[in-house]
Amino acid sequence: MLKVEIICVGKLKERYWREAVEEYSKRLSAYCNFSVTELAEARLSDSPSEKEIAAALEKEACLMDKFLGANGAFRIAMCIEGKTISSEQLSAKFTEASVRGHSAVQLFIGSSFGLSDRVKKACDLRLSMSPMTFPHQLARVMLCEQVYRAFSIAANSKYHK
Amino acid sequence: MLKVEIICVGKLKERYWREAVEEYSKRLSAYCNFSVTELAEARLSDSPSEKEIAAALEKEACLMDKFLGANGAFRIAMCIEGKTISSEQLSAKFTEASVRGHSAVQLFIGSSFGLSDRVKKACDLRLSMSPMTFPHQLARVMLCEQVYRAFSIAANSKYHK
Repeated sequence: MLKVEIICVGKLKERYWREAVEEYSKRLSAYCNFSVTELAEARLSDSPSEKEIAAALEKEACLMDKFLGANGAFRIAMCIEGKTISSEQLSAKFTEASVRGHSAVQLFIGSSFGLSDRVKKACDLRLSMSPMTFPHQLARVMLCEQVYRAFSIAANSKYHK
Repeated sequence: MLKVEIICVGKLKERYWREAVEEYSKRLSAYCNFSVTELAEARLSDSPSEKEIAAALEKEACLMDKFLGANGAFRIAMCIEGKTISSEQLSAKFTEASVRGHSAVQLFIGSSFGLSDRVKKACDLRLSMSPMTFPHQLARVMLCEQVYRAFSIAANSKYHK
Protein backbone atom coordinates (compact mmCIF):
# COMPACT_ATOMS: atom_id res chain seq x y z
CA MET A 1 0.00 0.00 0.00
CA LEU A 2 1.31 3.41 -0.98
CA LYS A 3 2.03 5.77 1.90
CA VAL A 4 0.36 9.16 1.48
CA GLU A 5 1.29 11.93 3.90
CA ILE A 6 -0.26 15.36 4.14
CA ILE A 7 2.18 17.58 5.99
CA CYS A 8 0.53 20.80 7.08
CA VAL A 9 0.76 23.60 9.59
CA GLY A 10 -1.49 24.24 12.57
CA LYS A 11 -4.39 22.39 14.11
CA LEU A 12 -7.83 22.59 12.51
CA LYS A 13 -9.70 25.03 14.75
CA GLU A 14 -13.22 24.30 13.54
CA ARG A 15 -14.93 21.02 14.35
CA TYR A 16 -16.50 20.89 10.88
CA TRP A 17 -13.10 20.88 9.15
CA ARG A 18 -11.80 18.24 11.56
CA GLU A 19 -14.79 16.00 10.91
CA ALA A 20 -14.46 16.37 7.15
CA VAL A 21 -10.76 15.40 7.28
CA GLU A 22 -11.60 12.46 9.57
CA GLU A 23 -14.22 11.22 7.12
CA TYR A 24 -11.84 11.29 4.14
CA SER A 25 -9.05 9.74 6.24
CA LYS A 26 -11.37 6.88 7.14
CA ARG A 27 -12.36 6.31 3.51
CA LEU A 28 -8.74 6.56 2.36
CA SER A 29 -7.64 3.79 4.70
CA ALA A 30 -9.09 1.34 2.16
CA TYR A 31 -6.75 2.60 -0.53
CA CYS A 32 -3.50 3.73 1.07
CA ASN A 33 -1.53 4.24 4.24
CA PHE A 34 -2.82 7.77 4.80
CA SER A 35 -1.75 10.27 7.44
CA VAL A 36 -2.08 13.96 8.21
CA THR A 37 0.73 15.52 10.23
CA GLU A 38 0.04 18.91 11.78
CA LEU A 39 3.23 20.85 12.48
CA ALA A 40 3.36 23.75 14.91
CA GLU A 41 2.45 27.11 13.39
CA ALA A 42 5.02 29.83 13.99
CA ARG A 43 3.47 32.73 15.88
CA LEU A 44 3.20 36.07 14.17
CA SER A 45 2.11 39.52 15.27
CA ASP A 46 -1.12 41.01 13.90
CA SER A 47 0.68 42.99 11.23
CA PRO A 48 3.88 41.05 10.56
CA SER A 49 6.68 42.53 8.46
CA GLU A 50 8.07 40.72 5.41
CA LYS A 51 11.07 39.74 7.52
CA GLU A 52 8.90 38.29 10.28
CA ILE A 53 6.89 36.31 7.73
CA ALA A 54 10.08 34.93 6.14
CA ALA A 55 11.39 33.91 9.58
CA ALA A 56 8.09 32.17 10.39
CA LEU A 57 8.12 30.29 7.08
CA GLU A 58 11.70 29.19 7.70
CA LYS A 59 10.76 27.99 11.19
CA GLU A 60 7.95 25.92 9.69
CA ALA A 61 10.28 24.69 6.92
CA CYS A 62 12.70 23.41 9.60
CA LEU A 63 9.89 21.24 10.98
CA MET A 64 9.32 19.93 7.44
CA ASP A 65 12.99 18.94 7.02
CA LYS A 66 12.35 15.59 8.65
CA PHE A 67 9.87 14.77 5.89
CA LEU A 68 11.93 16.33 3.11
CA GLY A 69 14.80 14.08 4.17
CA ALA A 70 12.81 10.84 3.77
CA ASN A 71 14.16 8.69 0.97
CA GLY A 72 12.19 7.85 -2.14
CA ALA A 73 9.13 10.00 -1.59
CA PHE A 74 7.38 11.87 -4.39
CA ARG A 75 6.83 15.39 -3.06
CA ILE A 76 4.10 17.86 -3.94
CA ALA A 77 4.11 21.47 -2.70
CA MET A 78 0.71 23.14 -2.63
CA CYS A 79 0.96 26.79 -3.75
CA ILE A 80 -1.32 29.15 -5.64
CA GLU A 81 1.29 29.76 -8.36
CA GLY A 82 1.69 26.01 -8.95
CA LYS A 83 0.47 23.96 -11.90
CA THR A 84 -3.28 23.37 -12.16
CA ILE A 85 -4.26 19.88 -13.24
CA SER A 86 -7.45 17.85 -13.41
CA SER A 87 -8.43 15.21 -10.84
CA GLU A 88 -7.69 12.55 -13.47
CA GLN A 89 -4.18 13.95 -13.93
CA LEU A 90 -3.61 13.98 -10.18
CA SER A 91 -4.75 10.38 -10.04
CA ALA A 92 -2.23 9.54 -12.77
CA LYS A 93 0.52 11.17 -10.66
CA PHE A 94 -0.29 8.82 -7.77
CA THR A 95 -0.30 5.77 -10.05
CA GLU A 96 2.99 6.91 -11.60
CA ALA A 97 4.59 7.42 -8.18
CA SER A 98 3.56 3.91 -7.22
CA VAL A 99 4.73 2.33 -10.50
CA ARG A 100 8.09 4.12 -10.30
CA GLY A 101 8.68 2.63 -6.88
CA HIS A 102 8.27 5.74 -4.76
CA SER A 103 7.76 4.71 -1.16
CA ALA A 104 5.40 7.59 -0.42
CA VAL A 105 3.62 10.62 -1.79
CA GLN A 106 4.04 13.66 0.44
CA LEU A 107 1.82 16.72 0.07
CA PHE A 108 2.94 19.93 1.80
CA ILE A 109 0.51 22.72 2.72
CA GLY A 110 1.84 25.81 4.42
CA SER A 111 0.23 28.22 6.85
CA SER A 112 -1.78 31.26 5.78
CA PHE A 113 1.42 32.75 4.32
CA GLY A 114 2.12 29.57 2.35
CA LEU A 115 5.35 27.59 2.15
CA SER A 116 8.93 28.80 2.22
CA ASP A 117 10.65 28.85 -1.16
CA ARG A 118 13.10 26.21 -0.12
CA VAL A 119 10.30 23.73 0.61
CA LYS A 120 8.76 24.47 -2.79
CA LYS A 121 12.16 23.91 -4.46
CA ALA A 122 12.68 20.63 -2.62
CA CYS A 123 9.43 19.23 -4.06
CA ASP A 124 8.98 17.37 -7.34
CA LEU A 125 5.77 19.18 -8.25
CA ARG A 126 4.24 22.52 -7.35
CA LEU A 127 0.49 22.15 -7.49
CA SER A 128 -2.39 24.61 -7.29
CA MET A 129 -5.99 23.53 -6.78
CA SER A 130 -7.34 26.89 -7.87
CA PRO A 131 -6.33 30.39 -8.93
CA MET A 132 -8.64 31.45 -6.09
CA THR A 133 -7.25 31.85 -2.59
CA PHE A 134 -8.68 29.43 -0.04
CA PRO A 135 -7.89 29.38 3.68
CA HIS A 136 -5.23 26.77 4.36
CA GLN A 137 -7.61 24.89 6.65
CA LEU A 138 -10.24 24.51 3.91
CA ALA A 139 -7.44 23.71 1.43
CA ARG A 140 -6.54 20.77 3.67
CA VAL A 141 -10.09 19.42 3.41
CA MET A 142 -10.12 19.98 -0.37
CA LEU A 143 -6.80 18.16 -0.72
CA CYS A 144 -8.02 15.17 1.32
CA GLU A 145 -11.02 14.97 -1.02
CA GLN A 146 -8.76 15.12 -4.08
CA VAL A 147 -6.50 12.36 -2.74
CA TYR A 148 -9.59 10.23 -2.11
CA ARG A 149 -10.85 11.05 -5.61
CA ALA A 150 -7.44 10.20 -7.09
CA PHE A 151 -7.59 6.68 -5.63
CA SER A 152 -11.28 6.33 -6.56
CA ILE A 153 -10.42 7.17 -10.18
CA ALA A 154 -7.56 4.64 -10.23
CA ALA A 155 -9.90 2.01 -8.73
CA ASN A 156 -12.59 2.94 -11.27
CA SER A 157 -15.07 3.38 -8.43
CA LYS A 158 -18.44 5.08 -8.83
CA TYR A 159 -17.37 8.01 -6.65
CA HIS A 160 -15.88 9.77 -9.67
CA LYS A 161 -18.32 9.49 -12.54
CA MET B 1 -27.22 45.81 0.69
CA LEU B 2 -26.63 43.59 -2.31
CA LYS B 3 -28.67 40.39 -2.41
CA VAL B 4 -26.53 37.30 -2.95
CA GLU B 5 -28.29 34.01 -3.63
CA ILE B 6 -26.70 30.60 -3.94
CA ILE B 7 -29.15 28.36 -5.78
CA CYS B 8 -28.16 24.73 -5.47
CA VAL B 9 -29.51 21.22 -5.61
CA GLY B 10 -30.05 18.81 -2.74
CA LYS B 11 -29.71 19.09 1.00
CA LEU B 12 -26.26 18.90 2.59
CA LYS B 13 -26.11 15.39 3.99
CA GLU B 14 -23.11 15.78 6.26
CA ARG B 15 -23.31 17.85 9.41
CA TYR B 16 -19.80 19.22 8.82
CA TRP B 17 -20.75 20.76 5.46
CA ARG B 18 -23.93 22.23 6.96
CA GLU B 19 -21.99 23.82 9.82
CA ALA B 20 -19.40 25.28 7.46
CA VAL B 21 -22.11 26.86 5.28
CA GLU B 22 -23.88 28.17 8.41
CA GLU B 23 -20.66 29.78 9.61
CA TYR B 24 -20.02 31.60 6.30
CA SER B 25 -23.72 32.59 6.08
CA LYS B 26 -23.48 34.15 9.51
CA ARG B 27 -20.32 36.06 8.62
CA LEU B 28 -21.80 37.17 5.29
CA SER B 29 -24.82 38.73 6.95
CA ALA B 30 -22.57 41.70 7.83
CA TYR B 31 -21.88 42.34 4.15
CA CYS B 32 -24.92 41.34 2.11
CA ASN B 33 -28.38 39.88 2.08
CA PHE B 34 -27.18 36.30 1.69
CA SER B 35 -29.25 33.17 1.16
CA VAL B 36 -28.77 29.56 0.11
CA THR B 37 -31.74 27.90 -1.61
CA GLU B 38 -31.65 24.13 -1.85
CA LEU B 39 -33.81 22.82 -4.68
CA ALA B 40 -35.04 19.23 -4.84
CA GLU B 41 -32.58 16.83 -6.47
CA ALA B 42 -34.12 14.77 -9.29
CA ARG B 43 -33.85 11.07 -8.48
CA LEU B 44 -31.70 8.91 -10.69
CA SER B 45 -31.04 5.19 -10.89
CA ASP B 46 -27.62 3.82 -9.93
CA SER B 47 -26.44 3.71 -13.54
CA PRO B 48 -28.44 6.39 -15.31
CA SER B 49 -28.44 6.68 -19.11
CA GLU B 50 -27.53 9.94 -20.87
CA LYS B 51 -31.23 10.48 -21.52
CA GLU B 52 -32.12 10.01 -17.84
CA ILE B 53 -29.39 12.43 -16.80
CA ALA B 54 -30.62 15.04 -19.32
CA ALA B 55 -34.19 14.64 -18.02
CA ALA B 56 -33.01 15.05 -14.42
CA LEU B 57 -31.01 18.18 -15.29
CA GLU B 58 -34.07 19.62 -17.07
CA LYS B 59 -36.24 18.89 -14.05
CA GLU B 60 -33.76 20.74 -11.84
CA ALA B 61 -33.56 23.56 -14.42
CA CYS B 62 -37.36 23.98 -14.18
CA LEU B 63 -36.99 24.61 -10.46
CA MET B 64 -34.34 27.23 -11.28
CA ASP B 65 -36.66 29.07 -13.71
CA LYS B 66 -38.15 31.09 -10.89
CA PHE B 67 -34.69 32.49 -10.14
CA LEU B 68 -33.69 32.86 -13.78
CA GLY B 69 -36.83 34.95 -14.29
CA ALA B 70 -35.95 37.49 -11.58
CA ASN B 71 -35.26 40.94 -13.05
CA GLY B 72 -31.91 42.64 -12.82
CA ALA B 73 -29.84 39.86 -11.30
CA PHE B 74 -26.25 39.15 -12.31
CA ARG B 75 -26.10 35.38 -12.82
CA ILE B 76 -23.14 33.06 -12.41
CA ALA B 77 -23.26 29.38 -13.42
CA MET B 78 -20.71 27.16 -11.68
CA CYS B 79 -19.28 24.60 -14.09
CA ILE B 80 -15.90 22.91 -14.49
CA GLU B 81 -15.50 24.20 -18.07
CA GLY B 82 -16.15 27.79 -16.94
CA LYS B 83 -13.66 30.63 -16.66
CA THR B 84 -11.15 30.45 -13.81
CA ILE B 85 -10.48 33.74 -12.06
CA SER B 86 -8.73 34.87 -8.89
CA SER B 87 -10.54 35.77 -5.67
CA GLU B 88 -9.67 39.42 -6.36
CA GLN B 89 -11.33 39.19 -9.78
CA LEU B 90 -14.42 37.58 -8.26
CA SER B 91 -14.55 40.38 -5.72
CA ALA B 92 -14.41 42.91 -8.59
CA LYS B 93 -17.39 41.13 -10.25
CA PHE B 94 -19.45 41.65 -7.10
CA THR B 95 -18.48 45.33 -6.89
CA GLU B 96 -19.24 45.76 -10.60
CA ALA B 97 -22.66 44.12 -10.21
CA SER B 98 -23.46 46.49 -7.38
CA VAL B 99 -22.19 49.59 -9.22
CA ARG B 100 -24.13 48.68 -12.37
CA GLY B 101 -27.33 48.55 -10.36
CA HIS B 102 -27.91 44.80 -10.37
CA SER B 103 -30.42 43.96 -7.67
CA ALA B 104 -28.78 40.62 -6.88
CA VAL B 105 -25.96 38.23 -7.66
CA GLN B 106 -27.19 34.68 -8.21
CA LEU B 107 -24.79 31.72 -8.17
CA PHE B 108 -26.10 28.41 -9.55
CA ILE B 109 -24.54 25.06 -8.58
CA GLY B 110 -25.99 21.90 -10.07
CA SER B 111 -26.18 18.37 -8.76
CA SER B 112 -23.42 15.80 -9.23
CA PHE B 113 -24.13 15.87 -12.98
CA GLY B 114 -23.84 19.65 -13.06
CA LEU B 115 -26.23 22.17 -14.59
CA SER B 116 -28.36 21.87 -17.71
CA ASP B 117 -27.02 23.73 -20.75
CA ARG B 118 -29.96 26.09 -20.78
CA VAL B 119 -29.19 27.28 -17.25
CA LYS B 120 -25.56 27.83 -18.22
CA LYS B 121 -26.68 29.82 -21.28
CA ALA B 122 -29.08 31.93 -19.22
CA CYS B 123 -26.23 33.09 -16.98
CA ASP B 124 -23.95 36.10 -17.50
CA LEU B 125 -20.82 34.24 -16.44
CA ARG B 126 -19.73 30.60 -16.39
CA LEU B 127 -17.27 30.18 -13.56
CA SER B 128 -14.99 27.35 -12.50
CA MET B 129 -13.25 27.27 -9.13
CA SER B 130 -10.83 24.57 -10.24
CA PRO B 131 -9.96 22.24 -13.11
CA MET B 132 -10.29 19.53 -10.45
CA THR B 133 -13.65 17.91 -9.83
CA PHE B 134 -15.10 18.53 -6.39
CA PRO B 135 -18.32 17.05 -5.02
CA HIS B 136 -21.12 19.58 -5.42
CA GLN B 137 -21.63 19.64 -1.64
CA LEU B 138 -18.02 20.64 -0.98
CA ALA B 139 -18.21 23.06 -3.94
CA ARG B 140 -21.08 24.78 -2.09
CA VAL B 141 -18.86 25.29 0.97
CA MET B 142 -15.98 26.51 -1.22
CA LEU B 143 -18.27 28.97 -2.98
CA CYS B 144 -19.62 30.36 0.31
CA GLU B 145 -16.02 30.94 1.38
CA GLN B 146 -15.23 32.71 -1.90
CA VAL B 147 -18.29 34.96 -1.60
CA TYR B 148 -17.19 35.83 1.94
CA ARG B 149 -13.65 36.45 0.67
CA ALA B 150 -14.99 38.60 -2.18
CA PHE B 151 -16.72 40.95 0.29
CA SER B 152 -13.71 40.88 2.64
CA ILE B 153 -11.46 41.98 -0.24
CA ALA B 154 -13.84 44.79 -1.18
CA ALA B 155 -14.00 45.88 2.47
CA ASN B 156 -10.20 45.68 2.70
CA SER B 157 -10.53 43.46 5.77
CA LYS B 158 -7.69 41.44 7.24
CA TYR B 159 -9.31 38.13 6.24
CA HIS B 160 -7.70 38.31 2.81
CA LYS B 161 -4.09 39.30 3.25
